[in-house]
Amino acid sequence: MHGKPKKHILVCVQRRPQDHPRGCGCADRGGAAVYQAFLDEFAKLELWDKGFLLTDTGCMGPCDQGPTVVVWPEGVMYLGVKPEDARVIVDEHLMFDQPVERLLAPKEIWG
Amino acid sequence: MHGKPKKHILVCVQRRPQDHPRGCGCADRGGAAVYQAFLDEFAKLELWDKGFLLTDTGCMGPCDQGPTVVVWPEGVMYLGVKPEDARVIVDEHLMFDQPVERLLAPKEIWG
Repeated sequence: MHGKPKKHILVCVQRRPQDHPRGCGCADRGGAAVYQAFLDEFAKLELWDKGFLLTDTGCMGPCDQGPTVVVWPEGVMYLGVKPEDARVIVDEHLMFDQPVERLLAPKEIWG
Repeated sequence: MHGKPKKHILVCVQRRPQDHPRGCGCADRGGAAVYQAFLDEFAKLELWDKGFLLTDTGCMGPCDQGPTVVVWPEGVMYLGVKPEDARVIVDEHLMFDQPVERLLAPKEIWG
């Protein structure tokens, strides 16, 4: 544990049954692989020691457009994240505070 | 889905095995019951419609002092949360932006 993180990265891996009629699809859509890709980046770059926290989560909402990644405190939501995007999010957003525009959830979902 | 939430409440239910040598104990310490208590509050007060988001999570760090609850964007961490605390956190922190002092993680952990 390294104190309150400067950023908290949440990756939906949907580990619980959903009340939602359409269910929650992040796991089926590759959420676990995305989480693993972030874990790999965290290990490689020692991001835990640099003030970042990574947590796997249950549903964060727009299941049918997952895998979903949320970054706090700025409250950025990414949709349709692929494992290879983890490095881009780390390199641009975590390191340089530049959210990855092409992955941002539309304002109708997370406006 | 109701847009970007004004607060995102994360409750550790520790659903995954941990690399951490001491493991991650929130589930054993009642994390699922705490999450259920928040779900009940969300349903009763229709908090989803009022700009709040609730998500169950994997490990957020100080497992041996869980169950752990984190509230973003302010980045407040609560430790040792009991199911009956969910209503207090909702009534004081979510409704009136007054974090519940007695449950706050110490600065050594989340400073």
